[in-house]
Amino acid sequence: MRASKYLVPTEKENPSDAVVASHRLMIRAGLVRKSGSGFYFFLPLGLRILKKIENIVREEMDATGALEFELPIMTPSEFWEQSGRWSVMGPEMMRVKDRHDQWYALGPTHEESFSYLVKPLLKSYKDLPINVYQIHTKFRDEIRPRFGVIRSREFIMKDAYSYHLDEASLDATYQDMRTAYRKIFQRCGLKTIPVQADSGTMGGSASEEFMVVSPIGEETLLLCGDCGYNSNSEKTPFIAKAEDSPNGPKDKKEVATPGKKSIEDVAAFLNVRPQDTIKAVAFQNGKEKLLVFLRGDLELNEHKLKSYLKWSDLDMIPEPELKNSNLVPGFIGPSDVGEGFKVILDSSIQKDFAYVVGGGKEDFHIQGYVPSSEIKIQYETADVALAREGDPCPTCAKTLKAEKGIEVGHIFKLGDKYTKSFQIQVLDQQGKAKTLTMGCYGIGVNRTMATVIEQCNDDKGIYWPISIAPFEIGLVTLTKGEEQDAKALEFYENLKNEGFEVFWDERDLGPGFKFKDSELIGFPIRITVGKKFFESGEISIYNRKLDKDETFKFIDFDDLNTRVENLRQELYQELLGD
Amino acid sequence: MRASKYLVPTEKENPSDAVVASHRLMIRAGLVRKSGSGFYFFLPLGLRILKKIENIVREEMDATGALEFELPIMTPSEFWEQSGRWSVMGPEMMRVKDRHDQWYALGPTHEESFSYLVKPLLKSYKDLPINVYQIHTKFRDEIRPRFGVIRSREFIMKDAYSYHLDEASLDATYQDMRTAYRKIFQRCGLKTIPVQADSGTMGGSASEEFMVVSPIGEETLLLCGDCGYNSNSEKTPFIAKAEDSPNGPKDKKEVATPGKKSIEDVAAFLNVRPQDTIKAVAFQNGKEKLLVFLRGDLELNEHKLKSYLKWSDLDMIPEPELKNSNLVPGFIGPSDVGEGFKVILDSSIQKDFAYVVGGGKEDFHIQGYVPSSEIKIQYETADVALAREGDPCPTCAKTLKAEKGIEVGHIFKLGDKYTKSFQIQVLDQQGKAKTLTMGCYGIGVNRTMATVIEQCNDDKGIYWPISIAPFEIGLVTLTKGEEQDAKALEFYENLKNEGFEVFWDERDLGPGFKFKDSELIGFPIRITVGKKFFESGEISIYNRKLDKDETFKFIDFDDLNTRVENLRQELYQELLGD
Repeated sequence: MRASKYLVPTEKENPSDAVVASHRLMIRAGLVRKSGSGFYFFLPLGLRILKKIENIVREEMDATGALEFELPIMTPSEFWEQSGRWSVMGPEMMRVKDRHDQWYALGPTHEESFSYLVKPLLKSYKDLPINVYQIHTKFRDEIRPRFGVIRSREFIMKDAYSYHLDEASLDATYQDMRTAYRKIFQRCGLKTIPVQADSGTMGGSASEEFMVVSPIGEETLLLCGDCGYNSNSEKTPFIAKAEDSPNGPKDKKEVATPGKKSIEDVAAFLNVRPQDTIKAVAFQNGKEKLLVFLRGDLELNEHKLKSYLKWSDLDMIPEPELKNSNLVPGFIGPSDVGEGFKVILDSSIQKDFAYVVGGGKEDFHIQGYVPSSEIKIQYETADVALAREGDPCPTCAKTLKAEKGIEVGHIFKLGDKYTKSFQIQVLDQQGKAKTLTMGCYGIGVNRTMATVIEQCNDDKGIYWPISIAPFEIGLVTLTKGEEQDAKALEFYENLKNEGFEVFWDERDLGPGFKFKDSELIGFPIRITVGKKFFESGEISIYNRKLDKDETFKFIDFDDLNTRVENLRQELYQELLGD
Repeated sequence: MRASKYLVPTEKENPSDAVVASHRLMIRAGLVRKSGSGFYFFLPLGLRILKKIENIVREEMDATGALEFELPIMTPSEFWEQSGRWSVMGPEMMRVKDRHDQWYALGPTHEESFSYLVKPLLKSYKDLPINVYQIHTKFRDEIRPRFGVIRSREFIMKDAYSYHLDEASLDATYQDMRTAYRKIFQRCGLKTIPVQADSGTMGGSASEEFMVVSPIGEETLLLCGDCGYNSNSEKTPFIAKAEDSPNGPKDKKEVATPGKKSIEDVAAFLNVRPQDTIKAVAFQNGKEKLLVFLRGDLELNEHKLKSYLKWSDLDMIPEPELKNSNLVPGFIGPSDVGEGFKVILDSSIQKDFAYVVGGGKEDFHIQGYVPSSEIKIQYETADVALAREGDPCPTCAKTLKAEKGIEVGHIFKLGDKYTKSFQIQVLDQQGKAKTLTMGCYGIGVNRTMATVIEQCNDDKGIYWPISIAPFEIGLVTLTKGEEQDAKALEFYENLKNEGFEVFWDERDLGPGFKFKDSELIGFPIRITVGKKFFESGEISIYNRKLDKDETFKFIDFDDLNTRVENLRQELYQELLGD
């Protein structure tokens, strides 16, 4: 490709609304332009990268035997009503009414559509397992679109759905997908960590997210450097440290704590540690009311709580409403629960130890409260506390480290939620109708592109992994006069005919400008044929990632092609070796 | 690909809602399934065809130097307001409101988006011309979706937009697109006719549609077999035949025509031909009122009328309203026009000849009415009559023939409508700011797929042009026992390794079933390795289009591969030779 016939709208200045590297560089390198909040135009250079990522995803999905489809973006409301999600999906799901007043969703995900589609196609166990996917546009009306294409409202996803007769078959495909995802991201030059994730309220039995560690990540990951246990903090079980066992006063008595509502204030006032106390949090969900008690120093993990309860919503109960239930905010204790409340004790609470708890009335707490002997009401015990950096690893008890992460992929055992609501059954080997079980597997294509930039940039711009670079080679020629122009063309034709993907910058611009553009855009290999070549036959091959120039005397095209091919191979090898 | 690992949901029965061949066969061959009215799931076999068509379109567009983009489907209402089309586009444009109450259209076309995008990218005449395109999903809320993917509500289009400093440059790109479209459809094995088309109310100066002649077409084409003039009847100039010059009574007088309102009744009653009369049609458009007079035997062409007037709407004036304007329906004459009416005389009216016209009052006409001397009011003359089969060709005066056509592509000189509203200007060679001129070029990808089937089907099913067949070769093997299975696998591996695209039907089904499936789906080449091979070494190569089997003694794979490659080449050659 010749630069003069292409569109290279590079920018010197950072766009004012771009706060992360990938967003800044995608705009500056002329890969995308903004159409509106959360919407991006893909320009030719950017689209090439996107399509290369799509192709890698497609190749690896096909290699596992998955079958590619393309489903309508517009999904009828009936599909969503059948699964019960029309009312659950909330304002993130964009909805549109047609001229006959029929409602549709602009598919943010396609469990319903694929289930509707495959139901009549699956007739017997012989048709199983099946893994169906598409690479297509999705919509999500983010309340705060940001970070460029990392959190946009219209984006490309690969979404796959597998159907199985039994759990063993689901697990086999789940493991295949796990392997395929590792290959996909590796081939894209993206370092990811699979972490255990919340399987949410859908009743799934396993779920892993492929995370890119990044300071701009919106997820908190807890990683164990020792045993390799990694999880999203939404999911991490909380393991208490021995030194956090309560060691406050053991004699039970009511103590006045005037005006001391927060755990910090109470602990300081009574001269105990926060972990010697128990605090209460109150929630509601439509009709149900809930009180959760957990160790005073811990935070509640709403994801784990929702998963445990199988609630999709969780709203704090406002103070006035608590008072209506005879509960005194700041002073609620486990012996103090009115009618109609479900009660959960977080498993961080050691029931045979003495704690400081709310006194059940204004300005009083109780010390020396031993839950096992004192709690008279019905309660359930569950792990609903948020694990933190420094907590013990749930697998090996070594110390967890926290990182921020961006999710680029997600694999999920869905169970029978959709196969039940769409009544997807086949006859098994014994001729008995059996409801299938299901998995789903997503990859954010645009987000993969952006996170590669987050990992592969320096102060000059982007250095693309060769597998997804818009072009493998940037050829910069600097010529004066027809004779030199002709020689430059010879270089271009030679490289092109040799099968290299070449972006030839033959524009009538100064060397500084052309070098800067090529480094900003990030072609992995740059070949310069400039003044030195015409003076003394010297040309250079530049490795963008290493920012390293190799200068040598031009012998002939064979020699040049061998050098370029060697570097090209080396760069592909690097990806696999990582 | 192995059939047993694929999805081949062929159907024996025709779907009840499918009235055209392509719709029936796409469902029966398992290429698509219906999701809802006007929405289709693309299954793996169907998607392969769609992607092959997309690739042909992409290759030919790229070969012209056009640059591929991908734009958001959601286009902000502001873009449409800037061009004035938000209120004009009507209910076919689907609209959606986001959580911040901002309106978007699901892009049915992208003149606005591309214009918004390219405006800041085009800085000088050196950046021109530029031709930008995408291959992406479009939405159109058809009032009556039908014929499967031929008229659906969500579909893939290639839409291109070119920007130019002057008309000569636009014309060059327009001609390039014309050539590229011919190549694209030829490579897809689709016979198309470019016809002159209505350039609508957008002020464009030229427009051609690429039409597939088909009895199910919704457009009427008028074709001249002599000079090659082809046009959509929406656009065809009407040329009067000499024998249709009026030859009714020449003495002017009022004649009673009690109850004779229709042209047929009046003509019969007065013993003249319909072409000896003049009729009136009344329209309105918001505020303006219009009376059109044309020869009694002709139909009004509303497209030509709207084009002439540059009106986007045209509503008949109801009879009661006509009466309010002192016009008597059925008896309106050219001397009888009240205040506030614009008047058009169709150019079919020979103004120096005597006609029968409305008398201006109930139950009366005037005969011997010579427009040139009688009409006192202001009027304009314009060609607004519908040309018909049998009329003279506007180019060579030979006779026009009518055909029905389906539009698969459209090229259009848009002029400066969008470049003006988006103020797209660059500095020309003299440093003067100049507003650009624009072209647009569309291809319906799904519709191309369906119309190929309309042209390439017989009572067995589809016969795909090899260029877009889901697989080039269907290998049918019929085996018993492990040894024969192993031999079959050898055939498959050989063909695959030779680089052929093979669909191997190794399913445990009878030969009849497997042959029928392969003929229904329409692989261009079928190779059968069956009973006869295992008995006497005989195999067959079947040419699906010719429905012709060639049986021969198997010698070795080299011989087989040569035979297959020869047929494959022949089938590709056929496309180019057409």
